[in-house]
Amino acid sequence: MNTAIEILLVEDNPNDLELTLLALKRHNFANNIHVARDGEEALDFLFCRGPHSHRTFDSPPKVVLLDLKLPKVDGLEVLRAIKNDPRTKAVPVVVMTSSRQQKDMIEGYQLGVNSYIQKPINFADFQEIIRQLGYYWLVINQPAPADAFK
Amino acid sequence: MNTAIEILLVEDNPNDLELTLLALKRHNFANNIHVARDGEEALDFLFCRGPHSHRTFDSPPKVVLLDLKLPKVDGLEVLRAIKNDPRTKAVPVVVMTSSRQQKDMIEGYQLGVNSYIQKPINFADFQEIIRQLGYYWLVINQPAPADAFK
Repeated sequence: MNTAIEILLVEDNPNDLELTLLALKRHNFANNIHVARDGEEALDFLFCRGPHSHRTFDSPPKVVLLDLKLPKVDGLEVLRAIKNDPRTKAVPVVVMTSSRQQKDMIEGYQLGVNSYIQKPINFADFQEIIRQLGYYWLVINQPAPADAFK
Repeated sequence: MNTAIEILLVEDNPNDLELTLLALKRHNFANNIHVARDGEEALDFLFCRGPHSHRTFDSPPKVVLLDLKLPKVDGLEVLRAIKNDPRTKAVPVVVMTSSRQQKDMIEGYQLGVNSYIQKPINFADFQEIIRQLGYYWLVINQPAPADAFK
């Protein structure tokens, strides 16, 4: 039984969450997703603490899909925490946001985001983006070996 | 006339270079590519110096496709230089290598590579990877705004 989580989806908006899961499911990327509904839960998952203390750093998700506007801990703070810690730095993080604020993009890139995507408003476009994104990060990109997370 | 370079392709092996250009051309990503044949030339291009002193930091390529085994300056050193300088840190770098050495992958991720891809040996597979990769970084990913390169 393979229970390794491949995608950590960090999203608090119920509509956006449902649409993203629907698009992932339609393209067969819906297995092994963990959903975090705020920034604190995302960090607990990635840093193997609290309810996720049974996890280990050497089996991170293949990609984190990160919304920016999050309760408790903001998306950019989650990104900063991931990229500033050698145990999590190698985890690919894709910011997916409807924000068109240039300062968020600039800060995201300066913090070391792997990729930055603007959510299309149209659902057909959104589905296509999710398909490309899922294929790229789950199939084409080579995730870091376990020793990169020490 | 749009002469902005979208892809910086850093590759010294003539066969690999030809195959990559052929695959990019077949998928209409062949416009606005600059080829650097060693690490020093790649850095001159990105840091707007030497023969590229007419360039400016605020119009970087949308993606750098970086081989690792390069003359003069090694690929990992090129990556380190890009990711350690605030003027170039936001440029997406995809390492494309035939190396299966785990230590290269680990170091690449620790230096902040955006994505790491292993070149398939089969040309049909290689073409498909180039198609996905070109679409992802040229169309789907949102490059950083000019102000991120200061």
